[in-house]
Amino acid sequence: MTRDKMLEAATILFTSKGFDGTSVREIARKTGVNVSLVSYYFGGKKGLLEALMVDFLEGYIERLEEAMKVTHPNAFETMMEMAQSSLLYMQDRHLRARFVLREMTLDSTLIREITSTYLMKEKHLYSMVLKKGMQEGVIESAPLHWTIMHFRGMVLMPFLHHQYVREVFHMHPQQPPFVMLYQKELRGWASKALLKKGFIDESFNSSIQNAASH
Amino acid sequence: MTRDKMLEAATILFTSKGFDGTSVREIARKTGVNVSLVSYYFGGKKGLLEALMVDFLEGYIERLEEAMKVTHPNAFETMMEMAQSSLLYMQDRHLRARFVLREMTLDSTLIREITSTYLMKEKHLYSMVLKKGMQEGVIESAPLHWTIMHFRGMVLMPFLHHQYVREVFHMHPQQPPFVMLYQKELRGWASKALLKKGFIDESFNSSIQNAASH
Repeated sequence: MTRDKMLEAATILFTSKGFDGTSVREIARKTGVNVSLVSYYFGGKKGLLEALMVDFLEGYIERLEEAMKVTHPNAFETMMEMAQSSLLYMQDRHLRARFVLREMTLDSTLIREITSTYLMKEKHLYSMVLKKGMQEGVIESAPLHWTIMHFRGMVLMPFLHHQYVREVFHMHPQQPPFVMLYQKELRGWASKALLKKGFIDESFNSSIQNAASH
Repeated sequence: MTRDKMLEAATILFTSKGFDGTSVREIARKTGVNVSLVSYYFGGKKGLLEALMVDFLEGYIERLEEAMKVTHPNAFETMMEMAQSSLLYMQDRHLRARFVLREMTLDSTLIREITSTYLMKEKHLYSMVLKKGMQEGVIESAPLHWTIMHFRGMVLMPFLHHQYVREVFHMHPQQPPFVMLYQKELRGWASKALLKKGFIDESFNSSIQNAASH
């Protein structure tokens, strides 16, 4: 689809030359279409940036919602499912992920307008799962906002802090084995920070034993 | 000092107009100096960016080193001291902090060259403290790289994710009470994730009791 191709071309150009350094003409040329089509689809460069971010963030929220529907023994496992879906979603579109996450660190009115709805939805979904986990007696009571801020920070981090991840994991986050590796570490850390004292993360222990016995 | 004034002017211009969108002429004009002085001090715009980042990162490493010299009952408290020093350092120069942290998310050769030395120093310092804590029996054994990646991530995060912090804490990270608030939350989270099972964070409990009794 032309629209998707334009978004893809824009992502590459914005990433390498910056939003200000990229012209609508270049985006059209890279897509192989007439420059007027950019206006037709997006109403200009700002509209294109907005579509690029909204598309990405909507897909991200959908993945979280789908992950929450998967049946799991407890809310902690649902959190892990959400993390995995998010990681795979970003891995599939790592350039777009990096661009969007980087844009979200900008403190401008435009970015705030585009992102605040999605941040609120994300917070709402994680809140529901955390509260469920507290009711189940699996997750330790803690300030929700703070917990969400750090958990989602850890999930999204690899695709923003490329350089750091490469140093620690000796691979790029877009390489296939990365998600599995990262998830294992995330689970270990999250079970210490989130699980109620006395609740043992059986699947983590058994996965360690499996790994050790192979 | 003229050099510092130039760096300050460049930080403001780079933040609002981007590196590519800012000219050496504008930086000189904003500083109130002749354009040739930029070349004299920095050899051009790229040199200025480098100086801006190196100055910031060198100051940051110095703060970590100083924090490690403060006498504390154990290595966990030293980690907290390092976190506090880092937070105060960034709060003092929040615009510069935000700019540098954002630049560090770029995956370019230039940025990698500028930052890798500092990332290695930072990792080395945190490694030393974590190992000390494990020897003391205060900090739980865990993969060092992973622990450092997340701990420093949490410390540096507020100045990069401005929008998110504002939503959670209802204040800007540059507002004076922010560091105290954030530190309290960070301590609670870190003591769960880092402290050895059975080791109770006395100062956290007593600070909660103090807060409750006031």
